[in-house]
Amino acid sequence: MGDGGNYAAVLHGPYDVRIEKWSTPEINDNEVLVKMECVGICGSDIKLYSTGTCGMDVLTEPMVIGHEGAGVVVKIGPKVTSLKVGDRVAIEPTQPCRACEYCKTGRYNLCIAPCYCSSMGAPGNLCKYYKHVADFCHKMPDNISMEEGAAVQPLAIAMHACARAGIKLGSTLLILGGGPIGLLCAMTAKAMGASKILITDVVQSRLDTARELAADYTLLVKREYSDQDMVDSIVAMLGTQPDITIDACGYASAQRVAMMVTKTAGIVLIVGIGEHKVEVPLSQALLREVDIRGSYRIVNTYPPALAAVSTGAIKLNKFISHHLPLARTKEALDLAKSGTAMKVIIHCLERPAPPYYRDIMLRSTKLTRVAPSFYC
Amino acid sequence: MGDGGNYAAVLHGPYDVRIEKWSTPEINDNEVLVKMECVGICGSDIKLYSTGTCGMDVLTEPMVIGHEGAGVVVKIGPKVTSLKVGDRVAIEPTQPCRACEYCKTGRYNLCIAPCYCSSMGAPGNLCKYYKHVADFCHKMPDNISMEEGAAVQPLAIAMHACARAGIKLGSTLLILGGGPIGLLCAMTAKAMGASKILITDVVQSRLDTARELAADYTLLVKREYSDQDMVDSIVAMLGTQPDITIDACGYASAQRVAMMVTKTAGIVLIVGIGEHKVEVPLSQALLREVDIRGSYRIVNTYPPALAAVSTGAIKLNKFISHHLPLARTKEALDLAKSGTAMKVIIHCLERPAPPYYRDIMLRSTKLTRVAPSFYC
Amino acid sequence: MGDGGNYAAVLHGPYDVRIEKWSTPEINDNEVLVKMECVGICGSDIKLYSTGTCGMDVLTEPMVIGHEGAGVVVKIGPKVTSLKVGDRVAIEPTQPCRACEYCKTGRYNLCIAPCYCSSMGAPGNLCKYYKHVADFCHKMPDNISMEEGAAVQPLAIAMHACARAGIKLGSTLLILGGGPIGLLCAMTAKAMGASKILITDVVQSRLDTARELAADYTLLVKREYSDQDMVDSIVAMLGTQPDITIDACGYASAQRVAMMVTKTAGIVLIVGIGEHKVEVPLSQALLREVDIRGSYRIVNTYPPALAAVSTGAIKLNKFISHHLPLARTKEALDLAKSGTAMKVIIHCLERPAPPYYRDIMLRSTKLTRVAPSFYC
Amino acid sequence: MGDGGNYAAVLHGPYDVRIEKWSTPEINDNEVLVKMECVGICGSDIKLYSTGTCGMDVLTEPMVIGHEGAGVVVKIGPKVTSLKVGDRVAIEPTQPCRACEYCKTGRYNLCIAPCYCSSMGAPGNLCKYYKHVADFCHKMPDNISMEEGAAVQPLAIAMHACARAGIKLGSTLLILGGGPIGLLCAMTAKAMGASKILITDVVQSRLDTARELAADYTLLVKREYSDQDMVDSIVAMLGTQPDITIDACGYASAQRVAMMVTKTAGIVLIVGIGEHKVEVPLSQALLREVDIRGSYRIVNTYPPALAAVSTGAIKLNKFISHHLPLARTKEALDLAKSGTAMKVIIHCLERPAPPYYRDIMLRSTKLTRVAPSFYC
Repeated sequence: MGDGGNYAAVLHGPYDVRIEKWSTPEINDNEVLVKMECVGICGSDIKLYSTGTCGMDVLTEPMVIGHEGAGVVVKIGPKVTSLKVGDRVAIEPTQPCRACEYCKTGRYNLCIAPCYCSSMGAPGNLCKYYKHVADFCHKMPDNISMEEGAAVQPLAIAMHACARAGIKLGSTLLILGGGPIGLLCAMTAKAMGASKILITDVVQSRLDTARELAADYTLLVKREYSDQDMVDSIVAMLGTQPDITIDACGYASAQRVAMMVTKTAGIVLIVGIGEHKVEVPLSQALLREVDIRGSYRIVNTYPPALAAVSTGAIKLNKFISHHLPLARTKEALDLAKSGTAMKVIIHCLERPAPPYYRDIMLRSTKLTRVAPSFYC
Repeated sequence: MGDGGNYAAVLHGPYDVRIEKWSTPEINDNEVLVKMECVGICGSDIKLYSTGTCGMDVLTEPMVIGHEGAGVVVKIGPKVTSLKVGDRVAIEPTQPCRACEYCKTGRYNLCIAPCYCSSMGAPGNLCKYYKHVADFCHKMPDNISMEEGAAVQPLAIAMHACARAGIKLGSTLLILGGGPIGLLCAMTAKAMGASKILITDVVQSRLDTARELAADYTLLVKREYSDQDMVDSIVAMLGTQPDITIDACGYASAQRVAMMVTKTAGIVLIVGIGEHKVEVPLSQALLREVDIRGSYRIVNTYPPALAAVSTGAIKLNKFISHHLPLARTKEALDLAKSGTAMKVIIHCLERPAPPYYRDIMLRSTKLTRVAPSFYC
Repeated sequence: MGDGGNYAAVLHGPYDVRIEKWSTPEINDNEVLVKMECVGICGSDIKLYSTGTCGMDVLTEPMVIGHEGAGVVVKIGPKVTSLKVGDRVAIEPTQPCRACEYCKTGRYNLCIAPCYCSSMGAPGNLCKYYKHVADFCHKMPDNISMEEGAAVQPLAIAMHACARAGIKLGSTLLILGGGPIGLLCAMTAKAMGASKILITDVVQSRLDTARELAADYTLLVKREYSDQDMVDSIVAMLGTQPDITIDACGYASAQRVAMMVTKTAGIVLIVGIGEHKVEVPLSQALLREVDIRGSYRIVNTYPPALAAVSTGAIKLNKFISHHLPLARTKEALDLAKSGTAMKVIIHCLERPAPPYYRDIMLRSTKLTRVAPSFYC
Repeated sequence: MGDGGNYAAVLHGPYDVRIEKWSTPEINDNEVLVKMECVGICGSDIKLYSTGTCGMDVLTEPMVIGHEGAGVVVKIGPKVTSLKVGDRVAIEPTQPCRACEYCKTGRYNLCIAPCYCSSMGAPGNLCKYYKHVADFCHKMPDNISMEEGAAVQPLAIAMHACARAGIKLGSTLLILGGGPIGLLCAMTAKAMGASKILITDVVQSRLDTARELAADYTLLVKREYSDQDMVDSIVAMLGTQPDITIDACGYASAQRVAMMVTKTAGIVLIVGIGEHKVEVPLSQALLREVDIRGSYRIVNTYPPALAAVSTGAIKLNKFISHHLPLARTKEALDLAKSGTAMKVIIHCLERPAPPYYRDIMLRSTKLTRVAPSFYC
């Protein structure tokens, strides 16, 4: 590349992330090489960073992390026709097998051999140069920033969750958990026409953000609340049972509340990984034909996510709270782990920092949350 | 009632509508008596008014017209528990049989014996006192005006059409016909997350209104355009084929264009009554698995319509263009028939006119369209 | 009626069922009076009979039991047009309110005030004369016997369960529980095109019947089996994970196995009432987007059930194992409770017994199971 | 291969099909080489054979025909894990791009660059050695014959059509056109639980076969029948309007009848290519919310088709009427074109003919239709 080659954020073990030289990948016929600009930090990154494991994945050798990325195409394979050098792309972080029954039936998120970024068998994209199969690099409309392009990844997860949750115009929605995914679900649901949205969390600041961006009601959960307390408070606030409940925190208690409070004929949608075994009043929900569904990763929601951000139906920039350069990845991970940030974006480019971040500061609505020391 | 009894807008024949005394209806156990406040004029009212027939209905005796109504409950039957005297209600203008297979499967709009207001066998509600079965009188949130309550009826039609059209977050939508239903479909689709909406019409002023309220693109249709011209223009404007096309005008040419232009695997939705026989390139659409669907009246969309208006997701007041008192019903019908009005609302109450309408004027965004002479 | 009036099987308390005089009901305008011929015994009858409670219902005064009935119309209300005197009818044992949101959306099984036979607020039909709303009395094709007409009720439950379970041509199906509902689900699933069906139970004789009627594979469950043992055995027998699992027994262990063994993107359907709280590996299923659904009672499945029995797609007569006269209702309940019978039918008519039951014996394929002493 | 190399049925122009030497294809990493055994003749083969064009395809150079094939894997690419040498496979005749939005959403039949056998850009498989991508070669259960394996292709088309038609347990079905696809739709619908099936055709012998294999009613269409005559006859025979109508002939008159006769809220499904422009009473159907859908080729229906044939739910061997060797391909095409055959299978192997075909004769139920002279 004539610019000093590749470097990457490599995880060597728990809390041991290093920015180091990394070989620039060779692209195949259907791939493109992307010069990364922005990569968001996700809950699974934090899990991997702090424990060396995530879900079924176990870190056995140094691995590049990151899977919420956007950048610019700098090289294309000979069979690529959908992209050209210079295109700005949001990277859907998977490369499914395209041959299993799930891929063939349009559910490639359930592919039996998915090659998902920064998980078993596929490197992450928190680096300078990253290669990816072209059709999972989505060309971004001009009015979407690189930071937003990175954040389209969790938005696409939320959109898949909301699609599975069957949100409709006029739906009343309860979201348990006001972290990034819960909040993006609320923003998505609002864009789909949900009429009333109540978000719960144990952290008031998250609820404040939720209220500002999408929630009509918020409920601060206290440790001493019983399941029934929660149900009563929710119904009292909404004036009705919710048609749909999304569990975006994964606790057994949340799942119990969801099963109890959701309206007859409604839907409980659980996004992400919950506790292994839970004690729940399953029959209470199922007898009322409340359907219980899970939502896993992303399937075909990058295009509508980009469309919704581009039209302004979803104000994704308001969701981004912090910005750090690649060199300070460890700080970014620690910050994200602290729970005080909503979405932390890492900037991979070697640009002169101060003016650049001043520019970002103007665009960022959450700037006051960012301590000056985070910027180099 | 101690207030001079009932009077109604009665159609005696083509162009012969009279405001006359009418017997106040006796309510049954499950019914309520509603003192009407606002009733909108619909395309089918105009058809009946100008021809004495509409669809399969033929005027054989004097009939009260009107089916887009809202008012206040003044009396309830002994078995009514859902409403009380004083409740403000939007009237869903049907009373299905509740026993046929369509009623039992949740498609009561297709009921074999529906008793639909101002059609064969059921009186309209453009009158002072009107009785209706309680569960089809929907209690209105306080922040919805009576005018909006009346206009919820065409909105509910548009919502059923949009539900049948399968509009999703990020959909690209073409609407053929910028009349009231086309426009309400656009507003509904936007509230459901459609990302790009193009409306076509032969009247520029309708397109201007559409642009202001919901459309991203508009196309003025000229008589000399061929079907292929239309297809080319639409694709050029949208930058792609529409995922979904709604025909809200009913012309054979619109249906041909819809079948040609809609994207593979998309949906063509035809709302309302079209020409009896049409010559269309059916195979062109079906081979690409473009589904062709119709939408008939209203089914279960009053609640989400009220919710969407109440939350502000749909700004229904902006859709109402004209207001007239009951005494000037004939003028209202002529005005609606002229095509220059978007939605004409008739006010049934005997209030002192000038201050009342001055009040309305402040709320009406389209006031400049209303000639002063319309107000008494 | 000029024939000695009405009498009924009345439950006075646990194990205290009496055949006694009962007033003949007066029919309303939309009702018919049915002279009952056959009534099946259901699991909920047994529960009520043996404990005086069932689900939320508690026996507080003497109540006529029974809700799987068929008979002949002997009188019709003045507004009834769908039936005439002499029609043979299968009685769908509910009369929903027709006004709540569930009734209006085609899910009247979830009606908020259902008047379900032999539950809170509605009498059963194990009697001589029973009145019912006409549109829930389904005219039976001539080639369906009265016994089958009674057994259409549990078949309709199974059909609703199978519809909710999304069974398709070629589906691989696991059914946990080989009682009447499990077996009818298997028969229904086979008629819908399921390619492989495995049924499990703790009783070998039930599995033998299942194998004869619908199952391709059977698995006898032993107490010492762990959840994982069950999963392993099921996968080994089917050669694959099941696409769909129906839990027709309600045990927590069955629900755990269902969640573990069902194929990614599959469906777990739980029919009927299970344990109140269960400890289950919910996340294990939901992460693989296995949907978990319940099925409650019957909605719109009487017509297809009657059609399937009439065409022979479902051989319902093979499912009926025992016949007893009304006078011996207590024996019938005890027999059903013993678990050795599949479906026990009570005959309500005062016909001369021996030749009649001899006739039945010729039609009944399971006759050898019926001890001679059961017949009077 | 050491056996004289490849040869194929090559179409040089209208009616000019030649069996000639052909190069044996080289397989890629994900492909297998199949020694073909049986290939069926399809309507599109006949069209191409007799006119040199089919749909958008135009014969511009000699092309191998055939796309209903089954054979034995004789070589596998290095990345193939799903198959091994010796496996018997039914070949799904496509290789979609796997990257367009249709492939990603599980609708690969609508792929923008499908490489469909014996159409533009992809050779057919009526030859001795044929290569195909491994995951579209479906391993056949042992109890399915090679002839049936070939005929799974039109069955898979019918299954996709029936899936799109929404056939359910108890559905009443009208099929317009008793050719191979109409008949296979009837057989599939029966396996899905359709309760009444009426097939129409202009040829009595087709109706006889339909009656024998799947139809409950048949109607011989005469030229002098008006659309209304057809509607009246159909309703009279079925005793009701059909819930679903499948047009398997493509004539405008059939599409008109379908729109008129199908029950309110029903579905009209048109399979295959119809006339370009048709004059139809579209509004008559759409106002009653009869959905109009098309069905194109095959998507994910090979696995259920193989399952249904293997379990005996669909007796595919009864559908095969004629057998000929590869050397007599021209006779086979002429026979198929004559309309007197149901399904003609060509055998590609150089086996000693008499004993082999004697074996086939024992398995074929339609043998009497096969003139002895067809066998060499």
